[in-house]
Amino acid sequence: MHPIGVIHSPFTEKDQTPIQTSRSQAIGLVELYPEFADGLDDIEGLSHIQLLYVFHQSSGYTLRVKPFLDDQEHGVFATRYPQRPNPIGISTVRLLFRQGNALTVEGVDVLDGTPLLDIKPYVPDFDVRTNGVRVGWYETRSKK
Amino acid sequence: MHPIGVIHSPFTEKDQTPIQTSRSQAIGLVELYPEFADGLDDIEGLSHIQLLYVFHQSSGYTLRVKPFLDDQEHGVFATRYPQRPNPIGISTVRLLFRQGNALTVEGVDVLDGTPLLDIKPYVPDFDVRTNGVRVGWYETRSKK
Repeated sequence: MHPIGVIHSPFTEKDQTPIQTSRSQAIGLVELYPEFADGLDDIEGLSHIQLLYVFHQSSGYTLRVKPFLDDQEHGVFATRYPQRPNPIGISTVRLLFRQGNALTVEGVDVLDGTPLLDIKPYVPDFDVRTNGVRVGWYETRSKK
Repeated sequence: MHPIGVIHSPFTEKDQTPIQTSRSQAIGLVELYPEFADGLDDIEGLSHIQLLYVFHQSSGYTLRVKPFLDDQEHGVFATRYPQRPNPIGISTVRLLFRQGNALTVEGVDVLDGTPLLDIKPYVPDFDVRTNGVRVGWYETRSKK
């Protein structure tokens, strides 16, 4: 796995950074390295994209964590805590426009300088589940 | 990045494998290596989880691809084509039950033996966008 670019954001400190992108209206710039620019063709038709990236400021992990939204411990895989065995993050953001190898996006929730691994289209037919969804400990916490 | 386990599925050939998990009712077994089992605590409360994994049968990539659902080329980042610069896949599946370090799930769309990188909770408050969603070339293709 090698970065294909960098995510620029207004957030330079962990404790400034929004907990989830759905709570953020921050504008960010997703800058692909120029050799990957052709891979963006036709992305303008998409209103939302998924960014996959490295939690580059997180080192090490424990299997039980106390997430930001709760005061109880949970298994790390039942949370989105950044310190995890493979520190990969996913954020769905709104694509505002493309200029060459750079995408201006709304709703970033990552630190400035975050290494980008991949971009995928957000497609509700594939990504959204509505039937019998339960969110466990997030039930009372995700709206906080 | 190191695998934390293996996804077992009924699919041993690429051309048998569903194009997206939302079209699959196949049952799979997500087997974590035993040393990661404690990270699953409290996952039973979640109805759906996101699996992150390696497209281990895909090697190499091109920046413009002709995806399974279309006969036109698109930039690879406007598609979910498996051959991509960092071959990471994401699937949202229904969690049926946990037994120790193994999760039985419904809706797998990966090849048997797929290396698992991470598990994250599916949380609609974070993952679902409903406002002004456009899916570009998928518009007429994602329901096929």
